[in-house]
Amino acid sequence: MERLTRVRIADIAHKAGVSAGTVDRVIHNRGEVSPRTRQKVEAIIREMHYEPDLLASTLASKKTYRFASLLPKSDHESLFWLQPAQGIEKAFKRIKHYGVAYQPYYFDYHNNNSFFDACNKLLEVPPDGLIMAPLFADLAAHFTDRAVELGTAVVFINTHINHSSQRAYVGQDAFRSGKVAAQLLDLCTCCEGELGIINIINQKGSSGHLMSREEGFLDFFAQKKSSHKKISTINVQARPAVSIHKELSENLLGMDGEIKFKGLFVTNSRVYQVADFLENTNKGPLRVVGYDLLDRSLAHLQKGNIDFLISQNPVAQGYHSFMALFDILVRKKTIEKRQYLPIDIVTRENIDYYLKHQNND
Amino acid sequence: MERLTRVRIADIAHKAGVSAGTVDRVIHNRGEVSPRTRQKVEAIIREMHYEPDLLASTLASKKTYRFASLLPKSDHESLFWLQPAQGIEKAFKRIKHYGVAYQPYYFDYHNNNSFFDACNKLLEVPPDGLIMAPLFADLAAHFTDRAVELGTAVVFINTHINHSSQRAYVGQDAFRSGKVAAQLLDLCTCCEGELGIINIINQKGSSGHLMSREEGFLDFFAQKKSSHKKISTINVQARPAVSIHKELSENLLGMDGEIKFKGLFVTNSRVYQVADFLENTNKGPLRVVGYDLLDRSLAHLQKGNIDFLISQNPVAQGYHSFMALFDILVRKKTIEKRQYLPIDIVTRENIDYYLKHQNND
Repeated sequence: MERLTRVRIADIAHKAGVSAGTVDRVIHNRGEVSPRTRQKVEAIIREMHYEPDLLASTLASKKTYRFASLLPKSDHESLFWLQPAQGIEKAFKRIKHYGVAYQPYYFDYHNNNSFFDACNKLLEVPPDGLIMAPLFADLAAHFTDRAVELGTAVVFINTHINHSSQRAYVGQDAFRSGKVAAQLLDLCTCCEGELGIINIINQKGSSGHLMSREEGFLDFFAQKKSSHKKISTINVQARPAVSIHKELSENLLGMDGEIKFKGLFVTNSRVYQVADFLENTNKGPLRVVGYDLLDRSLAHLQKGNIDFLISQNPVAQGYHSFMALFDILVRKKTIEKRQYLPIDIVTRENIDYYLKHQNND
Repeated sequence: MERLTRVRIADIAHKAGVSAGTVDRVIHNRGEVSPRTRQKVEAIIREMHYEPDLLASTLASKKTYRFASLLPKSDHESLFWLQPAQGIEKAFKRIKHYGVAYQPYYFDYHNNNSFFDACNKLLEVPPDGLIMAPLFADLAAHFTDRAVELGTAVVFINTHINHSSQRAYVGQDAFRSGKVAAQLLDLCTCCEGELGIINIINQKGSSGHLMSREEGFLDFFAQKKSSHKKISTINVQARPAVSIHKELSENLLGMDGEIKFKGLFVTNSRVYQVADFLENTNKGPLRVVGYDLLDRSLAHLQKGNIDFLISQNPVAQGYHSFMALFDILVRKKTIEKRQYLPIDIVTRENIDYYLKHQNND
């Protein structure tokens, strides 16, 4: 039952009664081999569970694969984007021995010109593979087409836009994550009452995934016909913070100055801004669900102003998008076009080990 | 900003103006090197972020590290144990090139003699590293001591027992997972009402982790002084199934034949047996939390007879326990003694991507 560490070409050659060179020609499908010998060697390869030594062959080929990423710069408002970079770092560390080089590019996610500039700079030396957060949907689609023309394999991360020339999307299923939020609020607001969906929208960014989340949320209650919960949507502009509070106050409070909702679903990481508002208000038996593990949101999770955070696994997104490029370019594998990550549910009680594992892994 | 694929010893030697042999002596701390040269070389190693090429050095050493596992056989009652084996398989595939061999051993988790026999067989050729599920606590402790005497590094998986000679524990923090369950039931039973803790105990196995889970659950409500929820504990023997139903019926139903609880916490994977019972009863506004993603429980999750399952990440347990042995034996690293995995919360809406990611990763 003990398995040895590795089947070598020499082992296959010995068993097939041919030379190592012949086995090599069969594996790499080059040079002349008689059909009969080929069949025999292929049967033995299967039987012995031979796996080609990718490391040895990439080292021998001396080819360098140029990977790049194009992600938003992280600022005090969005530390979120630090995390895919960490995941990429982890993947890069794991596979750099295979002749992979890596160059990150950044843009300001409030500014589509900065996205445009970064794109052009990137195309000067087109990389073999590119991980891109397609935040400005039209620009991103246009740029993806140009990159693909230049021979770059493009993988989208975090935000899914329908675009045929990208090779894979790595991130969350936004519609389904809205359903998860709906189920949590449904389970946690056992009495009847109104639910609110709050979209805090960044004017210049893309909000397609916010809409998908809202649709998923509404779909959950549409499917569950027995429910009588009333649902209202509140759209708020992301800046400035004072006007958010004013709008929330107008929309969330009843005549008596108390929150008139039983549960709130904030469709992005700006849930901490809603929690800031709630902290100064009588929260009552209100349940709040939002996204992402920003420090400001985690502080509210600890205090009970937020009950559930849905994690988009940004570290894993970075890691898996880099590995997707590796699969495509180095391992020449066919990969799934939509690589949906788990929709992790985080509460005050499970957050510690969640973060620890994410960072240590 | 572009980083090359690898810093080589020759690069360090060149930069330090010494021979490659000198750099090698500094890295491996052998032979004579003047303190001044050593300092200079070490500074350049740090500056260039050199990492020793573990693969090259293990291949050169030709040593084979013998890893073994000792886990329960999985049967129709506990498919759970298939999953750590999958995680081990994944880790083995990743590191087998480093000269690692692997041999699994199994025992019947209803039968301590079978555990004893497997232990003895395993010690005939003591492995360098062993992953063990210490289900029969006293036997496991005794056996661990013997294995350690013979030079084996032992890592516990899934069930934590206090034992000084094991090198690491990889699994969940049982106490904390009880707190997670408590928080979920607290959030989901907004009206006052009684909560039940159900321990379904397998006579011959270990139930230490069930007790820790119960303690965590009770601690959550003890900390939360404002809560007035009444909590009762119900202990039930695991066999036969008919008597479980009888006991549940006696304990869970009120005079009116209706469930008298607002929420139930089943402290292990036998939550499906409680759900079987509830399916034939008027469940009312009852919330149910249990453990593990067995098929029978997942079916109940879909139907709404179970609301939350806490996943113990058995695949990740297998993976990380194997990597822990790798770190200890091959990479000679000092590792954390308690490697707690995340306490994942699974519902009907997030289960699909959770399972998919677990199996594909």
